[in-house]
Amino acid sequence: MKENELVFRLATRSDLPSIVRMLADDDLGSQRERNENPLPESYYSAFEQIDNDPNHELIVAERKGEVIGTLHLMFLPSVSFQGGLRSQVESVRVDKRFQSQGIGSEMMKWSMERAKQRGAHVLQLTSHKTRVDAHRFYERLGFKGSHLGMKLNLK
Amino acid sequence: MKENELVFRLATRSDLPSIVRMLADDDLGSQRERNENPLPESYYSAFEQIDNDPNHELIVAERKGEVIGTLHLMFLPSVSFQGGLRSQVESVRVDKRFQSQGIGSEMMKWSMERAKQRGAHVLQLTSHKTRVDAHRFYERLGFKGSHLGMKLNLK
Repeated sequence: MKENELVFRLATRSDLPSIVRMLADDDLGSQRERNENPLPESYYSAFEQIDNDPNHELIVAERKGEVIGTLHLMFLPSVSFQGGLRSQVESVRVDKRFQSQGIGSEMMKWSMERAKQRGAHVLQLTSHKTRVDAHRFYERLGFKGSHLGMKLNLK
Repeated sequence: MKENELVFRLATRSDLPSIVRMLADDDLGSQRERNENPLPESYYSAFEQIDNDPNHELIVAERKGEVIGTLHLMFLPSVSFQGGLRSQVESVRVDKRFQSQGIGSEMMKWSMERAKQRGAHVLQLTSHKTRVDAHRFYERLGFKGSHLGMKLNLK
């Protein structure tokens, strides 16, 4: 294994504090997460659902044994596109201390390969309109910003 | 039951021809679906996956026993938003013969109620940038176009 190699694996329960720390560590995330010790139970119950569903893969990226990135890859069976399987990625984060080193790009390329391996015809994501740098990053990887992503708050 | 009442129910295998007909019946859909008789087997195998997964609800809207609308509602467990459940709606279609009668609106309101019932904190969707009328329709229902929806073709 090369010294700086990223290792991708399914997250375990004990990775949750690292994952939530990364989710909470930006302007949008800080408003909606509760990065506390111990973590609120709701994070653990969501983890159990994700972990028990083979169509969900909560992933961590490790370097030298340290978790420095996370993403949530999901596979969505669909009637449209001739019954084509979609993949979707949410909650992509790289630890702020290690940004701008190509880690996000490696994580997305891993996701693309994994999605192809499972037979998905598309990898989709939405990114907040204010995350302009992220849009450019995804475009460099081949994504097209063809859609408007709309959300309705139900609470 | 009122004469014009819409009835919502889970789709069955025998609804697939109606569903695919509606998916194929517009500019974007006609390029990607195969509305043939019999339908390609891929539609049926996707249906089986959806039907077996309690986090997926493929819905038809019926009026007077006739299927005139469809939508695919999915529930996505997620670590973000404190482990909050997301809901997502895809493949929303109303039979062209019955458009502009408020049916789409009724279908979306049904989806919102169903998503609340299952405890989702958000209902999300993406809509192709060219579907400007659809964006206005969703905005009237309270959706905010806060995100860019990006897709990467994997085939």
